[in-house]
Amino acid sequence: MASFSAEAGKLLVIPSDGSHWLGMKSIVEELGRRGNQVVVVFPEASLSMGPSEQTTTLTYPVNYTKAELEANLADQLNTILSIDISTDLAKFQSFIISMDVLPMFILRNTEGLLFNKDSMKKLQDYNFDAILTDPFEPVGAITGEYLSIPAIYMLINHPCGVDTLASQCPCPSPPSFVPRFFTGFSDKMTFHQRVENTLMTVFEAFLCRKLFAGTDELASRYLQKDTTYKELLSHGAVWLFRYDFTFEFPKPQMPNMVQIGGINCAKKGPLTKELEEFVNGSGEHGFVVFTLGSMVSQLPEAKAREFFEAFRQIPQRVLWRYTGPVPENAPKNVKLMKWLPQNDLLGHPKVKAFITHGGSHGIYEGICNGVPMVMLPLFGDQGDNVQRLVSRGVAETLSIYDLTSEKLLVALRKVINDKSYKEKMTELSAIHRDRPIEPLDLAVFWTEFVMRHKGAAHLRPAAHELNWIQYHSLDVIGFLILILVTVIFVTVKSCMFCFRKFFKKTQKKKKE
Amino acid sequence: MASFSAEAGKLLVIPSDGSHWLGMKSIVEELGRRGNQVVVVFPEASLSMGPSEQTTTLTYPVNYTKAELEANLADQLNTILSIDISTDLAKFQSFIISMDVLPMFILRNTEGLLFNKDSMKKLQDYNFDAILTDPFEPVGAITGEYLSIPAIYMLINHPCGVDTLASQCPCPSPPSFVPRFFTGFSDKMTFHQRVENTLMTVFEAFLCRKLFAGTDELASRYLQKDTTYKELLSHGAVWLFRYDFTFEFPKPQMPNMVQIGGINCAKKGPLTKELEEFVNGSGEHGFVVFTLGSMVSQLPEAKAREFFEAFRQIPQRVLWRYTGPVPENAPKNVKLMKWLPQNDLLGHPKVKAFITHGGSHGIYEGICNGVPMVMLPLFGDQGDNVQRLVSRGVAETLSIYDLTSEKLLVALRKVINDKSYKEKMTELSAIHRDRPIEPLDLAVFWTEFVMRHKGAAHLRPAAHELNWIQYHSLDVIGFLILILVTVIFVTVKSCMFCFRKFFKKTQKKKKE
Repeated sequence: MASFSAEAGKLLVIPSDGSHWLGMKSIVEELGRRGNQVVVVFPEASLSMGPSEQTTTLTYPVNYTKAELEANLADQLNTILSIDISTDLAKFQSFIISMDVLPMFILRNTEGLLFNKDSMKKLQDYNFDAILTDPFEPVGAITGEYLSIPAIYMLINHPCGVDTLASQCPCPSPPSFVPRFFTGFSDKMTFHQRVENTLMTVFEAFLCRKLFAGTDELASRYLQKDTTYKELLSHGAVWLFRYDFTFEFPKPQMPNMVQIGGINCAKKGPLTKELEEFVNGSGEHGFVVFTLGSMVSQLPEAKAREFFEAFRQIPQRVLWRYTGPVPENAPKNVKLMKWLPQNDLLGHPKVKAFITHGGSHGIYEGICNGVPMVMLPLFGDQGDNVQRLVSRGVAETLSIYDLTSEKLLVALRKVINDKSYKEKMTELSAIHRDRPIEPLDLAVFWTEFVMRHKGAAHLRPAAHELNWIQYHSLDVIGFLILILVTVIFVTVKSCMFCFRKFFKKTQKKKKE
Repeated sequence: MASFSAEAGKLLVIPSDGSHWLGMKSIVEELGRRGNQVVVVFPEASLSMGPSEQTTTLTYPVNYTKAELEANLADQLNTILSIDISTDLAKFQSFIISMDVLPMFILRNTEGLLFNKDSMKKLQDYNFDAILTDPFEPVGAITGEYLSIPAIYMLINHPCGVDTLASQCPCPSPPSFVPRFFTGFSDKMTFHQRVENTLMTVFEAFLCRKLFAGTDELASRYLQKDTTYKELLSHGAVWLFRYDFTFEFPKPQMPNMVQIGGINCAKKGPLTKELEEFVNGSGEHGFVVFTLGSMVSQLPEAKAREFFEAFRQIPQRVLWRYTGPVPENAPKNVKLMKWLPQNDLLGHPKVKAFITHGGSHGIYEGICNGVPMVMLPLFGDQGDNVQRLVSRGVAETLSIYDLTSEKLLVALRKVINDKSYKEKMTELSAIHRDRPIEPLDLAVFWTEFVMRHKGAAHLRPAAHELNWIQYHSLDVIGFLILILVTVIFVTVKSCMFCFRKFFKKTQKKKKE
């Protein structure tokens, strides 16, 4: 750990569920270890959130259960598996599905905390210096605003680019090289892709208004002022982005945006004796790691069979996080596990490939350890994530909808046997790990900075204080046009006056 | 020093003259100390450049002398002293003066190196990994392009914002809150200032084309391809900006822009016994430091008298870097020196104020040590620099043109006796020094990064590969309009056809 001054502060943490919590947990624990008083608040029903070391945990009741959350997730997965995501329309459909179900639980969770008077009173009494929250769910941002404490937002990206809008970055993201969400395009697009990307830009605006309508209404109602989620987020002091530019396409940043991509990679341990024996078992052929993330450990039987069939035909051994039905004659080179130490396995010298859904944590563990990937995007931003690696020549992607053992075999053999994948990945990994300061240290530094200085006002562009007309200089342009028109008008009138005088004189003379 | 891997590289350094060299010297010496082979190249005639520790020095002849450079500088100063810079027109005049004389020497220096076959052959033989240069003068950028090595640019800002243009930052700098060069505005402008700023934006475009015409021509001629200075700079791998956001107004950054403001501040030593005695001599009243930068140590007698008269009336002692004429009854509390240890003095607990011309080095030493300032901008970007501190409430500014002892006294007493200046400066200083990594380490890291990885391609936005039409999606918009027009045309034609048919039928029926 770096040696900045460790003045203890009081930090409120309101994380978001699912894999989001994994990214935040290590920062929160490090902040606690450094002597800060860290209070982590989450709902009683959640997919993955739980107590963390060196912190205090507070929970509040919500009007749904963990079972309901899980059922919802399974429903979503089934829908995804039944959509041919390779077409534009389907891509869009999957976007709508994700966006439609999510807000419901998100709003119920938000109301669960905000309207729980006891909890809110307790939080107020703590007198926190700052809040660290994931703006994927609005519960943290609204609570921070209610408590009038500066906010540190931690995320990887935000649907609809609310992060960019809220930071008042005067950076238009031209559709010519900035791919839109859920298009799955890279930053180098064909003409056809650019047309689609431009159309998506227009459509996005409508969709996003719908997506945040509930949040805007709830925030306004609770804070008793007319506001929007975007406006709340624009008060953020510092944004911690869980990416760097070995993954994300280079794009402009505001001074209060900090890149902390690859934050969990450093934590690596040795394998158990049993695992070590298994992965060494295939000798020089090495092994393959396969997971679909912390939220998906099952697949329909037919789909699972395609995987087993492909694995039967490769010389590598396979470690698969899988709890679904197993066919009778499952191949011997496959080891099924309920949970697997993903980063430890990816750091093993014999690993040859990583089959992943393209969640950001897995991607960074892959980059960090330099392992080529076969990617099967499921939902959310995964389709876009995947494209970022495919365009760098370090991964192949397949659609889970029409996956067959043949397709999987082709992709797997490609990333394992074609040396360019490993070479490019090794280079990307070297660049990723070559940094002046560890991302965890950076995240801790900026969180403590906000606590020490009660915000980060010096990083806030003056644009925040301008209204729409002023920002775009419309008043100035109007004023200059007015002057120009006046000058032209006066000049023309004067000329006409002179001309008439002269004309009259000439006529008079002629008459005479 | 931080502990990144120190793999020795070969670095070419082509600095720029004057105070520019001061900023680069410490980085260059640190790079040499870390085992890199550093070759610093500069002309035989220069104002301030000289050998540095741990590096190899190469010089080349130029067709001007140091005396000519100094005479030119003195000329410029005299012109500035005779212009009432408080009016808009004069501000502009001073801009033109600076911009007109500069390019002449800059081009002669550039030609001096480029057309010196021996020197260029020697540089080629070194087989450098990268070049570190200050783009204020084009000699480094053209040499780097000629040698086909990646470039690290180090600067504080560039007239005409060539830095922003060249980095392909899709960040328009709205005139509503981004003050233009030489306007001396802050980021919070009145309506009148915004009008002026908008007009300046338009005018700047013309002026800048003129400013770089000679460079564009020389670069195209030497490299034997049609190019511009802006295009050369756009190949830059990393930009090291000698600012941070306690000084500069927050604005968007590209991922290859690194802030290293305050790089020289850490180097502090104790005062000599003589100086220590002098500064302690006025007891609790403390002392004032006064310099007009490394290039100006003289003033016309009448102007100097105003300073002496003001200093006579304050209880503080004054240390003044001054080599000009001294009046007979010069006050006893003033100590004149040929050179003074500025940063050591500003770090002394008894310092009360800093009278400065607003050069970036002095400003950062002031911020670093938390000393309120009275600022007398002379040329270049100093007028703009000053405004950045005045708008933060840590400095007062005066025009040197119409400076009187009364005006100076009012300003000095204000920054010394009104506690808000010191308070705000202490806060600014605390924020400036509260950083996760030292700017010198950051500069060294990124320079070595470029040497290690032969550039920083992963930080380069795809925008560089698009032409103007593609970048702005004009082809896509044209295509969409074409489709829209076709659809409308076909619809209207069809409707008219149907309408006619219907109309004819009705007429027929009527006739029948």
